[in-house]
Amino acid sequence: MAAACAPLAGDLRSQLLASVDALLFDCDGVLWRGESAIPGAAQLVNRLQECGKLVFFLTNNSTKSRELYVEKLQRLGFRAHCQQIYATAPCAALYLRREIQLCGSVYVIGGAALRGELQAQGIVCSGPGPEVTPGTLQVWATEPLDLTVAAVLVGFDEQFTYLKLCRASRYLRDPACFFLATNTDTLLPLEGGGIPGTGCLVKSVEAASKRTAYVIGKPNDFMFKCIVNEHGIDPSRTVMIGDRLDTDILMGSNCGLRTILTLTGVSTLEEVKAHQESDSPERHKLVPTYYVNSVADLLPGLE
Amino acid sequence: MAAACAPLAGDLRSQLLASVDALLFDCDGVLWRGESAIPGAAQLVNRLQECGKLVFFLTNNSTKSRELYVEKLQRLGFRAHCQQIYATAPCAALYLRREIQLCGSVYVIGGAALRGELQAQGIVCSGPGPEVTPGTLQVWATEPLDLTVAAVLVGFDEQFTYLKLCRASRYLRDPACFFLATNTDTLLPLEGGGIPGTGCLVKSVEAASKRTAYVIGKPNDFMFKCIVNEHGIDPSRTVMIGDRLDTDILMGSNCGLRTILTLTGVSTLEEVKAHQESDSPERHKLVPTYYVNSVADLLPGLE
Repeated sequence: MAAACAPLAGDLRSQLLASVDALLFDCDGVLWRGESAIPGAAQLVNRLQECGKLVFFLTNNSTKSRELYVEKLQRLGFRAHCQQIYATAPCAALYLRREIQLCGSVYVIGGAALRGELQAQGIVCSGPGPEVTPGTLQVWATEPLDLTVAAVLVGFDEQFTYLKLCRASRYLRDPACFFLATNTDTLLPLEGGGIPGTGCLVKSVEAASKRTAYVIGKPNDFMFKCIVNEHGIDPSRTVMIGDRLDTDILMGSNCGLRTILTLTGVSTLEEVKAHQESDSPERHKLVPTYYVNSVADLLPGLE
Repeated sequence: MAAACAPLAGDLRSQLLASVDALLFDCDGVLWRGESAIPGAAQLVNRLQECGKLVFFLTNNSTKSRELYVEKLQRLGFRAHCQQIYATAPCAALYLRREIQLCGSVYVIGGAALRGELQAQGIVCSGPGPEVTPGTLQVWATEPLDLTVAAVLVGFDEQFTYLKLCRASRYLRDPACFFLATNTDTLLPLEGGGIPGTGCLVKSVEAASKRTAYVIGKPNDFMFKCIVNEHGIDPSRTVMIGDRLDTDILMGSNCGLRTILTLTGVSTLEEVKAHQESDSPERHKLVPTYYVNSVADLLPGLE
């Protein structure tokens, strides 16, 4: 039997908030949509911090540095500083430097922010090399590779090309070459229905290399582990708040946290119900502990 | 218990050849490797035709038209004409025109040969449109689509970009838009270990659209059905000869044909053994009826 996914209302709000020291917020669909803050979200986040709660921002988006996130949060009225930001670009850099202590450079499929975060950790980015190598496919199949490359990292890359796919797959033929992805979301939500997410690029590199990437982002627990290491938070006194069952809520479940689904983003209560009614224990992990219509609904719990 | 995969030697060769009217050959790894014919392959193919056998060439490669295949076969010494060529580019065009009688144009990820074969069947190719639309991701998410597009076709495309992925996925949001792939091979064999095949691009479009492409190429039976329709061959008197278990041999099994694995290409007898010893009936379909070291080994069976 899966958890109940209770509406977080009435006294339950203050009880829950009293029982947590740390709140982990997904950003897009939870605190804002595009360039508009969710009404009341900034008041909640600021009030939580005034009450002494630890607040962290967790995002799978790999196109922004910590600094750019702080800038956006502040622009939308949220009190925030760099140490609260856990995004896949800086966390990928941390993983390469601290966890696997990479010796060598990284072949990056991704944008300027991802490269910047790697460089900030002292990691050298290879290439990308000339984007159009003259000659035939046979030239692409045999062009010299950068012998210093010891990892391939795939993030969001609007300049993704077949040639980058080709190069990544050739580096990954060496089983000693690490294979990392920032995240596996297949949709980047935007007005107009969104565009393909990083996960679509990861799929093509996985197919070409017949390997599976280690994924930094949610639902994996790496970003949460970073927060525990750096801030010493207690999982039993932490709650994860997100709009996606398959990333935010699943990460919370994977890390043993209580979870809150907010209905201002991607997932719906109908999806929750389908997971609850399923016989699969794996799907039960996608059921949040609580839900709210908007994170602003938590505000009265602080009064 | 899986089939035996007998060596095709001695009298078995002439018995087998006497029992077939039609022979279906995969090309790369069977008749040639790159620009070099497999020694003896052209003599076999030419002698078979002199003996009154029907010979057909089946390839998953979508980068060549029928004419280019005839040219290559003749250059390497094979007697061949257009009606014997079953490649995924012309067969995709046939599928769109005859099977689904497409009303509308096709958004093509693929090269000039694929477009040429579509146009030869009177099918209009949309776009591809400007390869770099100025502006932001938000522009790409909302740029006007070609309202005549009724199908997306993915073939090999060395000019594959994120923008093409984005456009394909936006067309495929309409459930009435057909989704076709020429083939799903993830490796294009070339000197130097090969480069990513069409299957890697298909994976990314499938992930972005949350849909599964209908696949024209082997192991699907569409090319075989075309040959049956156009030439009236009898499956019980037909043999499929190829170098790949997961495409050539599986297609033969799917179509109820006897099959011959030739060891001049991708698959090995070790792989055959692993499939034979598996408990999975699905894997037994990958076990060929016979094997030869090279198609040239069939020649004495004609004497």
